[in-house]
Amino acid sequence: MNKTSRSGGDMPVEEFRRVGHEAIEWVANYLEDPGKHPVLANCRPGELQSRLPSRGPRTGESMDVILHDFEESILPAVTHWNHPRFHGYFSISSSGPGILGELLTATLDVNAMLWKSCPAATELEQTTVAWMLDWLDLPAEWFGMILDSASSGVLHALVAARQRTEPQSRSAGASGPLVAYVSEHTHSSVEKAAIAVGLGQSNVRHIAVDARFRMRTDELARAIRSDLSQDLRPFFAVATVGTTSTTAVDPVEEIGSLCREYGLWLHVDGAYGGSFGIVPECRHILNGVDQADSFVVNPHKMMMVPLDCSLLYTCHPGQLRSAFALGAEYLKTDAANAVDYMDYGLVLGRRFRALKLWFVMRYFGLDGLVALLRDVLRMAAWLGEQIAADARFELVERGAMGLICFRLHRGDAATKQLMSRINGSGRFFVSHTVVGGRFTIRVAIGNIRTQQSNVEELWAFMAEAAGSCRQSRASMRH
Amino acid sequence: MNKTSRSGGDMPVEEFRRVGHEAIEWVANYLEDPGKHPVLANCRPGELQSRLPSRGPRTGESMDVILHDFEESILPAVTHWNHPRFHGYFSISSSGPGILGELLTATLDVNAMLWKSCPAATELEQTTVAWMLDWLDLPAEWFGMILDSASSGVLHALVAARQRTEPQSRSAGASGPLVAYVSEHTHSSVEKAAIAVGLGQSNVRHIAVDARFRMRTDELARAIRSDLSQDLRPFFAVATVGTTSTTAVDPVEEIGSLCREYGLWLHVDGAYGGSFGIVPECRHILNGVDQADSFVVNPHKMMMVPLDCSLLYTCHPGQLRSAFALGAEYLKTDAANAVDYMDYGLVLGRRFRALKLWFVMRYFGLDGLVALLRDVLRMAAWLGEQIAADARFELVERGAMGLICFRLHRGDAATKQLMSRINGSGRFFVSHTVVGGRFTIRVAIGNIRTQQSNVEELWAFMAEAAGSCRQSRASMRH
Repeated sequence: MNKTSRSGGDMPVEEFRRVGHEAIEWVANYLEDPGKHPVLANCRPGELQSRLPSRGPRTGESMDVILHDFEESILPAVTHWNHPRFHGYFSISSSGPGILGELLTATLDVNAMLWKSCPAATELEQTTVAWMLDWLDLPAEWFGMILDSASSGVLHALVAARQRTEPQSRSAGASGPLVAYVSEHTHSSVEKAAIAVGLGQSNVRHIAVDARFRMRTDELARAIRSDLSQDLRPFFAVATVGTTSTTAVDPVEEIGSLCREYGLWLHVDGAYGGSFGIVPECRHILNGVDQADSFVVNPHKMMMVPLDCSLLYTCHPGQLRSAFALGAEYLKTDAANAVDYMDYGLVLGRRFRALKLWFVMRYFGLDGLVALLRDVLRMAAWLGEQIAADARFELVERGAMGLICFRLHRGDAATKQLMSRINGSGRFFVSHTVVGGRFTIRVAIGNIRTQQSNVEELWAFMAEAAGSCRQSRASMRH
Repeated sequence: MNKTSRSGGDMPVEEFRRVGHEAIEWVANYLEDPGKHPVLANCRPGELQSRLPSRGPRTGESMDVILHDFEESILPAVTHWNHPRFHGYFSISSSGPGILGELLTATLDVNAMLWKSCPAATELEQTTVAWMLDWLDLPAEWFGMILDSASSGVLHALVAARQRTEPQSRSAGASGPLVAYVSEHTHSSVEKAAIAVGLGQSNVRHIAVDARFRMRTDELARAIRSDLSQDLRPFFAVATVGTTSTTAVDPVEEIGSLCREYGLWLHVDGAYGGSFGIVPECRHILNGVDQADSFVVNPHKMMMVPLDCSLLYTCHPGQLRSAFALGAEYLKTDAANAVDYMDYGLVLGRRFRALKLWFVMRYFGLDGLVALLRDVLRMAAWLGEQIAADARFELVERGAMGLICFRLHRGDAATKQLMSRINGSGRFFVSHTVVGGRFTIRVAIGNIRTQQSNVEELWAFMAEAAGSCRQSRASMRH
């Protein structure tokens, strides 16, 4: 028996076996302590590119050489998101079961466009999105699907909402003047999607926020009425559960009431924050979400699922279908009663993302994921307490989820200097935002490997470094 | 040393190591002979879902149990795309190096939204898209990026083209009346994207095709002139290199000339066919593509890269940037001269897809991939010859790429019956289309494990089964 003969033109199976086991060892060693790598890549723009050949190889190379180059060339230019001291943007995690799910997904390589094109992919998608609704205590009858990102999710929501408001737009094109409402702190992807779907950036209203960065519903009501009085058509509003800048939670119930009063589609962006809804003592953040027309939560953010895995829910699947279903003959299927997910969205090429989600949900279970999120909440709250107790710091957000936002009383220049020192240490990565016109450091806690000792280490460094961060002459002038 | 203590709340590393090695063994055994599985799932809609628990588990479960359920419950409901006798839709492949690339991508879990968020992901993306341009002999100066699918690619192209034609639309919204041109055989994703971006389905013209299913440029010219005479604004045309129904190649050069004459953006859809451009004797299919404004090729189709990996090129990156760049403070980066890919597209959550592409390009090399595509071409041409030589069959497309299209002279009912027998055998999966109003079977050849003996087996089965496929009474009446 020639074991490799059947593999056709692919890597011989025995070679895959050998290299695959080596790769698993590499992954295991990596996961054992991602923290041994500098969290931020230490390179200049173009540096890696200039070191790689400008042309692809004419003849094939061995995996040993390729994996060697991966370690020698690629890895030093990696910013390690799966690192216990990665606190930038939002801190996310790919867990062991999620990684193994991706391995099997890549192996099967199925396309979940139609039920028939892979029944398992479609039905496991239906199953896992239903499980998540149950865990989040949201309406069981909602339709759910897995997309790549919340950016895609809101694009789908905008198109479905337009379909509801102006059904003729599918055929005739966007005619406007439709108006969408977000807060000053809503994620920029909504505006981007609004441009893409032809709504126009000028038809996105940025509603002011209150002192805790939550959308002001009085301002929302005023804006809607003002637009109506000018014969514009308010049709869409976004409430965010966990904004990107500060994890603020918009007043979803009140925004929902206004949406119902004026006939707007309510989209709730829980890309980051939604996951905390599985934690009983946090479930209140989802109050009112059951009244949403669409809702997004990203298990690739706070549910230990590798990128990409974003869930889009809606109670109006018919609107998605009305907007997106097209019957090309080569895609017609004879399976009645089956969901063909491609009819509910933009793309046909749909990975089997449900597999990794199923692995993660089963491996950790609800209790396990709740425990992981409680660890996050506890560490974030601890850091918030340290900062609040130190008179040099101004705490902007104390970690109701996994994010702490703060600045130095000494002003923006000093705060920027502190951030430079933190990131320049090579040990931590934090990012920033500007809120209330002031430069603010964000410390996102969320990686599955982050432990209390990591956060203590960060605080010790910050507390020490803050002492020598000075007002610049420019900021002293104010 | 407690080896597992560092892994925090994740699967302990020793467990990952054990289960990971088991998973590699499973994958190796699978890849050794995917053909031992029935290619089509044998299940009814809802069957798998009804067998799975309706709620996710409260407490975590062991990976052994989960992997057991994967084999027992999920696998029988899988349609095996990575199977040597999968000839439906387009036959694609995930190869060993591509699978290992996905394993490492899931492990690192980086987001390639900004250069800074992972320099390696951005620069390897720049490097691999440049390598591919070189292999395809297309303009080296083109800007390229990796998206999930050609559906997303054409959405980006439409938005960029609108940005060029009506720069005010970004702010004011789509105002129309913009018109896009596709052929009767252009992929439905273009129409879907046109609906999504607010262009309107009625503003997509379906230009008639010639006897070989290629867009008729005289009809295109007539349609453009007709629209201009009605004060509509022609702005976008799609030429396809390898249509989904029959792998027809539109006359790209002539369409391009018309586009330049009338100021239209030419988008070339080479999602499937583009890959054959690396084969010297096929390179002519890309003639004229150097004049395109945008071009898509999907390495996840014919380049042995696991889903998803779709390359979008354009010579107008500034238009993409003008449409999509938005500066949220929390995303501002200090890296001048660096490409922040999120500024060129819709989504922020961008997987490190370049890694698997780099692995595949290096492992096989240009010569290796050309050899694999030549195998595909040879097998497809062989099957075409058998069909052409059999008087019962009518050959519609003889396999200039990897697709054979045919029907039985006896009529649609007999052809449908033949397809049912082929798929009902459990040994093969073929799909269908309707061209010229007639039901037509598509045999896509392209899986990396498909060998001549598989195709001979299919032909023997078809030739035998065709003998007993009868005209239905309905079709005899005609």
